Parts: sequence; C-alpha cells; structure tokens
Amino acid sequence: MSNIKIDFKSVYYPSPIVLVGAMVDDRPNYMTAAWFTKVHNTPPMIAVSLGSGHFTVKGIRANKTFSINIPEALIIEKTDYCGLVSGKRVDKSDLFTPFYGQTDSAPMISESMISMECTVSEIVSLPQDDLVIGTVVETYANEKYVSGECIDPHKAVPFCYVSQEKKYFGLGRALGAARSIGKKLIQK
Amino acid sequence: MSNIKIDFKSVYYPSPIVLVGAMVDDRPNYMTAAWFTKVHNTPPMIAVSLGSGHFTVKGIRANKTFSINIPEALIIEKTDYCGLVSGKRVDKSDLFTPFYGQTDSAPMISESMISMECTVSEIVSLPQDDLVIGTVVETYANEKYVSGECIDPHKAVPFCYVSQEKKYFGLGRALGAARSIGKKLIQK
Repeated sequence: MSNIKIDFKSVYYPSPIVLVGAMVDDRPNYMTAAWFTKVHNTPPMIAVSLGSGHFTVKGIRANKTFSINIPEALIIEKTDYCGLVSGKRVDKSDLFTPFYGQTDSAPMISESMISMECTVSEIVSLPQDDLVIGTVVETYANEKYVSGECIDPHKAVPFCYVSQEKKYFGLGRALGAARSIGKKLIQK
Repeated sequence: MSNIKIDFKSVYYPSPIVLVGAMVDDRPNYMTAAWFTKVHNTPPMIAVSLGSGHFTVKGIRANKTFSINIPEALIIEKTDYCGLVSGKRVDKSDLFTPFYGQTDSAPMISESMISMECTVSEIVSLPQDDLVIGTVVETYANEKYVSGECIDPHKAVPFCYVSQEKKYFGLGRALGAARSIGKKLIQK
C-alpha cells in the first residue's frame, strides 16, 4: 500500500451544498456555498466558510443574521446559478419566494427543502475567507417534503457536491446503518 | 407552499464522514466525525467539530497536530466502529496501518482514500464541542484509488452520511455539472 502526495484541491469528498441568504442593500441576496457543516447540537450551531469579498458577507456582517438553505433537486439549477453571478451585479431577490422568521434580515427560501434562520455567533477571519459560525434560531422544512416531523427521502431528492468532479450527485444506495455496521468489530 | 418548524436534529443533508487521527498516550487513536468541512484553499485549511470530552481531542490539544482521513467503502465498518468505541477503553492503534508525514503525532490511515496531515490553527470552544480549525501540511491519496493526480471515481466507492436516516450512502447519479447547469438562467 502506498500513499502519495496530491493537491489539496483534489481532496475527494462529498460535501453538502447550501444557499446562504442575507439582506444586502435592502434586498434578499443568495449565494451558493459548499463549505458548510453543523458544529453543535444544543444550542444548534452551524459554520460556513465564505470568501470575504462576497456581497452576501457584507449583509451578514451588517445585520448579524443570515439563513442557510438546503436545496433539493427541483432548485438545482437556481442553486448553481447563485454561485455563478454576484449580487453586486445581478438582483437575485426575485429568484425564490422569501420567508422570514424572527428578523427581517435573514431571508429564507420557501422552495428549499430545509431553511435555518441564524444569528452570527462569531466570525473567524481566515486569510481570504470568513468562517461564519452561526446559532440557529429556528429550523424550517418545506412541508411538501415532510412526513411526520422529518424530511421524507421518498418525497425529496437531496444531493451533494463533489468539487473534484465538478458535479452534483444524488444519493445512491444505502451502504449500511450508522452506529450499527461497526458493531461486529467490537470485542466481546 | 408552506414551511414548517422542525427540530435541528432533523436537518436533512448529506455530510462527509471522516476519521480523525491523533496520538494519545503514545499510541495512534482514531475517531469518527461527520461535522467536517474545508474552510480555505490557500493555505489549505479544514475545520472539524468534535465533542470536547473525546479521547482524540486530548491528543489534538496536547500535540497541536492531527490527521483527517476520508474513508472509502472498503473500510466502512471500521469507520463506523471508530465512532462506537472510545480510545479511553479500547486500543484502536492496530485497526489501521498508520503512516506519518512531517511529525510523529498525526497518524494517518494508509487504507484511507485521502489523508491530510494537519496542524492546529485555532480551536473555537463551543459549549460542548471544540471546533478545531487546522492547516493542512500535506495531502495524501491511497494510490490504488488514483488515476493521474486525482482520485478516480471508477476505482473508489466514496460515501456520505445522513444523520437523519442514520445511514451511509454511496453516491448516486450525477444530476448536473457544477458552475454550468445554472448558466441557462443568466440573463443575456
């Protein structure tokens, strides 16, 4: 077995893809981001790394609120589009139907599978990016994808992003149950 | 269209799953983590959120180095196992073939598809978790999964994790090319 050096940009991993919403210059703006993760459960917190110069980041810094929206396949083209054009040049406010939670400055996307209203907890300044750590005030799901109190994977087509392949992928077959398939390795 | 409140724990999104390696009490230890993302390209940086009480975190804090390893389906059971048992009780040092880069304190996993040797850049203390921000010293790929200078998706079976379903999933069909399928929405 041999492990060879490769470029960091060739790191192969499936990442989520999210739309970050913010109010900028009095209108909703959305940008696409792949560097997103949950970071804490109670209180609910997330982190997203965004290029510092982005129009959306201006709104996040001004308002201290923003939204994270997880798209489903029906809005995959609009999701991609939001990463192609900047709000500095193009008004994206009519692209989606916005809805609001406790503030008027975190436009959430009705058409999204999941939306989270967030307040800024901390911004870690990296050389070219801002790692925005947010506390989730409230989480919403688009009810057309819901059964009971959760997203129903038979109603939704979630997808992930693989940057090395420059493609979005649906989920494939289940390879195993988490916190379960490893139990056979536990020594009795 | 209606958007309804749901629990943050029901947020449906595909996340990567990684094995975090660290030297603890003079032996390699590994833990499973799903709250991982790249955060910066130049220099290469990543972030991973880990429960503060974890054995692995003790090693990361002591050595200021650690590894991030991205598994492939061949080690999916061992990946799951590392999330089931703590290094406090079980010696996991023989589970994988470790290899080392510039330090002796960031054990990387030879069997992994991708491994990154990291130094701690900053640790953001959250109420119950440590958000570890790392600078990637070097990135490695297991050459059996490589063609040219990248992972070859025909040689590897990458997978992601969906916590709401408590399952690992392979990648499904490509739904579109990134930074491309949204171009049709650009107004001429």
